[in-house]
Amino acid sequence: MKLATLRVDGGFHVARVEDGGYADLGPGDVGSLLAEPGWPEHAATAVGEHVPTGSADLAPVIPRPGKLVCVGLNYRTHITEMGRDLPEYPTLFAKFPEVLIGPYDDLDLPPESDTVDWEAELVVVVGRRVRRADAESAKAAIGGYTVMNDVSLRDWQFRTREWLQGKTWEATTPLGPYLATPDELAPDAAITCAVDGEVVQSSTIADLLFSPADLVGYVSTMVTLNPGDVIATGTTGGVGHARKPPRYLEKGQTLRTAIDGIGEMVNEVRRG
Amino acid sequence: MKLATLRVDGGFHVARVEDGGYADLGPGDVGSLLAEPGWPEHAATAVGEHVPTGSADLAPVIPRPGKLVCVGLNYRTHITEMGRDLPEYPTLFAKFPEVLIGPYDDLDLPPESDTVDWEAELVVVVGRRVRRADAESAKAAIGGYTVMNDVSLRDWQFRTREWLQGKTWEATTPLGPYLATPDELAPDAAITCAVDGEVVQSSTIADLLFSPADLVGYVSTMVTLNPGDVIATGTTGGVGHARKPPRYLEKGQTLRTAIDGIGEMVNEVRRG
Repeated sequence: MKLATLRVDGGFHVARVEDGGYADLGPGDVGSLLAEPGWPEHAATAVGEHVPTGSADLAPVIPRPGKLVCVGLNYRTHITEMGRDLPEYPTLFAKFPEVLIGPYDDLDLPPESDTVDWEAELVVVVGRRVRRADAESAKAAIGGYTVMNDVSLRDWQFRTREWLQGKTWEATTPLGPYLATPDELAPDAAITCAVDGEVVQSSTIADLLFSPADLVGYVSTMVTLNPGDVIATGTTGGVGHARKPPRYLEKGQTLRTAIDGIGEMVNEVRRG
Repeated sequence: MKLATLRVDGGFHVARVEDGGYADLGPGDVGSLLAEPGWPEHAATAVGEHVPTGSADLAPVIPRPGKLVCVGLNYRTHITEMGRDLPEYPTLFAKFPEVLIGPYDDLDLPPESDTVDWEAELVVVVGRRVRRADAESAKAAIGGYTVMNDVSLRDWQFRTREWLQGKTWEATTPLGPYLATPDELAPDAAITCAVDGEVVQSSTIADLLFSPADLVGYVSTMVTLNPGDVIATGTTGGVGHARKPPRYLEKGQTLRTAIDGIGEMVNEVRRG
């Protein structure tokens, strides 16, 4: 099952992906849905008006996560190709919820930066409240998966030793298009990022060093995870900043971010 | 004027500090109050039932900030005594709202760390929605000030190159006791932290490198600041981790964090 959050009349509706479009399940968003007991059955069986694909306006699938936790380097191949040792612990940082845009929204490059870069990521969406989760309860707390492009302003990111200020620019981070329930995601699903059709990142989630359940367990050691909280699991090789010469997003480009089994986001890059 | 958030019947009430206690201004918290147009007049003039000091249960003065932005090294004297150059840009990181506890709540040391440290900080509370604020509008966006102890788990903080995981442990960060309106705070107000009566940090806010208005302007460049958002402005010298030998919080101790013109927090340290 795949679920989306639609923009309807200035608010949000939950929708189930179906042939040719969506079944509109009414007011709410996927984040609020996950807080309802028995949501998988409800979402799978509820009847809703059909919205054709072309008529739907998709919001960030979780429009307002309570917490948006991000992970640094987490793809084995990429870490070792950079000549680094595999880390013992995941590197964590935060983004504020205002960063999010929908999966087909335009991406406006902030005027304050010419070094805006891509980072395709698998995102874990929490479906159950947990604290200090063991391996089993961490896995059970995963409500589903989605895709994020952790768009980063490299100049601001490296102004100081903490990354936050390059990571938390308003309306720069596509999230979506769907929440896919765990059964939809193959353990070796392909993850890709493409700019104007050129594949710039390509890997599989089998290369993740810290698995989704590992990360839920680790983060829940420090703080309660609630339904709708999200953990972005890090990106793989191929970011623009590491290229020689470096490459960054430019106005007029099309940014595509996809994971097999979840879906693809398509964002036109603009300069406001 | 000083305002507090009281815990009443499982919810929150806004209160104005008055002789011997508080005037209970009814349901809400100081964060939600700041989102109301004309809040200073309302809060100053509203009539409320008197709650004696001994009967009041104080919540974090902003119980659930939309954003909790923190600043790294920001006291000139402390930076230069560490042998570092003054930085060109503030170092920013985040905490999640679940970290907060009230100004007189017990501080439970997490069982996962023996290196829990203190960091007394002046906190700016945003009172007006701003984005890309110039100096004047940044200053005007300051709703008031409060005090935070940015309690930090040094072992987790330094596990990786990003500080978040040492900074965002649930229910470890006292915030309060009051929101003081800007007129209450002298430009050279003393800031202190004491453990069992021994003053371990002592400075004045005149030593801040990036002022409250500087920080509002800087953060608002990247993301909209809303009423009730908070920016913790960094700590001064005297933290336990930098001492030789290092010192950390222990159960049974009393942690006091104070800024003249705002108030003092008193937290008993426990080990759950």
